[in-house]
Amino acid sequence: MRTDRMDDTLIDVPRGLTNVVAAETALGDVRGHEGFYHYRQYSAVDLASSRSFEEAWHLLLVGELPTAVELEDFRRRIARARRIPEEVTTLLPAIARLTHGADALAGLRMALTALAAHDRIRPLYDESVDERVADAIRVSAVTPVLLASLHALADGREPAASRDDLGHVANYLYLVTGTVPDAQHEYALSAYMTAALDHGFNASTFAARVIASTGADLSAAVGGALGALSGPLHGGAPSRALDTLDAIATPDRIGGWVTDTVRSGGRIMGFGHAVYRTEDPRSRMLRGIAQSIGGGRVDFAVAVEQRVQELLAELKPGRELHTNVEFYAAVVMELCGIPREMFTPTFAAARVVGWTAHILEQAAEGKIVRPSSRYVGPPAPVPLPVAVPA
Amino acid sequence: MRTDRMDDTLIDVPRGLTNVVAAETALGDVRGHEGFYHYRQYSAVDLASSRSFEEAWHLLLVGELPTAVELEDFRRRIARARRIPEEVTTLLPAIARLTHGADALAGLRMALTALAAHDRIRPLYDESVDERVADAIRVSAVTPVLLASLHALADGREPAASRDDLGHVANYLYLVTGTVPDAQHEYALSAYMTAALDHGFNASTFAARVIASTGADLSAAVGGALGALSGPLHGGAPSRALDTLDAIATPDRIGGWVTDTVRSGGRIMGFGHAVYRTEDPRSRMLRGIAQSIGGGRVDFAVAVEQRVQELLAELKPGRELHTNVEFYAAVVMELCGIPREMFTPTFAAARVVGWTAHILEQAAEGKIVRPSSRYVGPPAPVPLPVAVPA
Repeated sequence: MRTDRMDDTLIDVPRGLTNVVAAETALGDVRGHEGFYHYRQYSAVDLASSRSFEEAWHLLLVGELPTAVELEDFRRRIARARRIPEEVTTLLPAIARLTHGADALAGLRMALTALAAHDRIRPLYDESVDERVADAIRVSAVTPVLLASLHALADGREPAASRDDLGHVANYLYLVTGTVPDAQHEYALSAYMTAALDHGFNASTFAARVIASTGADLSAAVGGALGALSGPLHGGAPSRALDTLDAIATPDRIGGWVTDTVRSGGRIMGFGHAVYRTEDPRSRMLRGIAQSIGGGRVDFAVAVEQRVQELLAELKPGRELHTNVEFYAAVVMELCGIPREMFTPTFAAARVVGWTAHILEQAAEGKIVRPSSRYVGPPAPVPLPVAVPA
Repeated sequence: MRTDRMDDTLIDVPRGLTNVVAAETALGDVRGHEGFYHYRQYSAVDLASSRSFEEAWHLLLVGELPTAVELEDFRRRIARARRIPEEVTTLLPAIARLTHGADALAGLRMALTALAAHDRIRPLYDESVDERVADAIRVSAVTPVLLASLHALADGREPAASRDDLGHVANYLYLVTGTVPDAQHEYALSAYMTAALDHGFNASTFAARVIASTGADLSAAVGGALGALSGPLHGGAPSRALDTLDAIATPDRIGGWVTDTVRSGGRIMGFGHAVYRTEDPRSRMLRGIAQSIGGGRVDFAVAVEQRVQELLAELKPGRELHTNVEFYAAVVMELCGIPREMFTPTFAAARVVGWTAHILEQAAEGKIVRPSSRYVGPPAPVPLPVAVPA
């Protein structure tokens, strides 16, 4: 029997729940004024630039950086959890056909649901903590493999098989590009993906936690997060930043293009962020990594960034507008050979680790997230009018 | 460029967002103290007991009860929207195999995602109001057909084809049972499903609105709602109420069973509700409908209800515990020939109409739902320890 809720006085908060504390978390935080964010007690950018993806993953999921032995074990678990069962593999061509040219995240939603059904992933509230961790590793480990497989199939190629000798990021890059990356490109993508593991609260993380709070299975919660991520207001679509570079095309056209765009009220993709008032710490790191690889495209991107910021300072005085993470994330992914349509899927392949960590934290709370609504329609009840004759 | 958010003072609210107003809605409300709920300005129970499912659906989605001409047109649109394209039909056997014995809602999530990909259902914020309404009708109309098809396939039967001469509820019952229902049983199931269209805010409705608020497509938002509904804390699993009837088995065992269950701290499924302090208005209506059909099972259910309430009043004085909607919903669905594993899917087949109405209302708001979290971990940043040797 459920407990009756006696006090039902409604609590008004800002629209969109802005600034409303929907969860307490030990996973990390974003300090927008300081241009700083962290996973657990460590700087996320320090982790991204000096540790492997798997170490940061272990930190978020388990709560601590792994020892050398734990890391070795964790890598092996991840490699095992990458395998896609035959019953799911046979579904992928049809999923790829249906979602080709549509939303790649929809294909992933279907494939992950199929995997969870195959694996009999159970409701979170029926599982031990170890079982939840195992599910989280499974879903996060298999996500990049499913994305790369669906992409290959949509391209008319046979999906490559994962290589157990490669780390999580290198294996993903191998599956997407067909080539084992060199250390420089593996490092670049690893830094991006590690920096993308988590970033405070957002609609996808929140959707995952709301669904997890009912005790649904982990894949249902991840599916909700993927749904939210597919929305245009969510952000996390770095390919749009390349549209800016493409539209400008050459360095001499930067000024004219920016002025025209701002005057016509258009948005300059890749610039501005809802949280950071300073430079986005992810942008700074990714710019450095892109420059260490170098090339004409990187030089052009840096030139665009500088000129756009100067022009925006003139055209919109008083507002500090820096590149957001999408700008150099796009440049880095392009350098790594990831095709543009795989930019958002690559973000999802990283962020799924953050989502699963949030899902486990929410499951440990054990309380359903169920807000209220305020009725604003005409007073009820009004008597029903005479029925329509059958 | 996004607007910088300057004031980031956090707002603390009760855990689980209890009583927090997460949305304003004109769709309806639940008045727990009065034992009353409504769709728009009309009593939901009056609608359920005197109007067709399609009329209440039109009311929720479009805002008004249909005229006779509008209703005719709406029924035709629904019948057209029931059709499953070949590309999705061919996927269903594999989905049924994978999800057989697991979560039926997971199978529906996959099938709906496939349908949305096939139909190229677009992001909500890219659509006109008419296109959103068309998507909502499509997804709600096809949901019962997909559920019945997956159930037939899991049972080793060929799915039946929808019949355009049948209304939405009669067609669903025909697909599930293989028999065109008589007027009495069609009325009974229609009353249940109409009463289940919506019921204030809950985790599934909220998950749908959070996802919709990003501008994701309607099927992504419905997928999130289905994920939340699959959680054990969500409720909406009427088959559990039959477990109570089965466990008691005969009228003479009611007293002993209830006393034993309460003394051992067990929960009596089918009794107690989080919102209603009075009798659940849905229970009252469904009991009447069940009694009008009659039979030994109904008499037994009524006897159990009366005796359980008397005993609970003795054992737990001061708490009013009535049957919740699950109790007589289960009895009615059993009377209609719906197998137990299809009880929650049948609830979903009704509730999807409410979800889509909420999704459209949220999309009209045009603002992302993005709350905050409060960091409660160790102070950051702590310098990274010396790295693990590679």
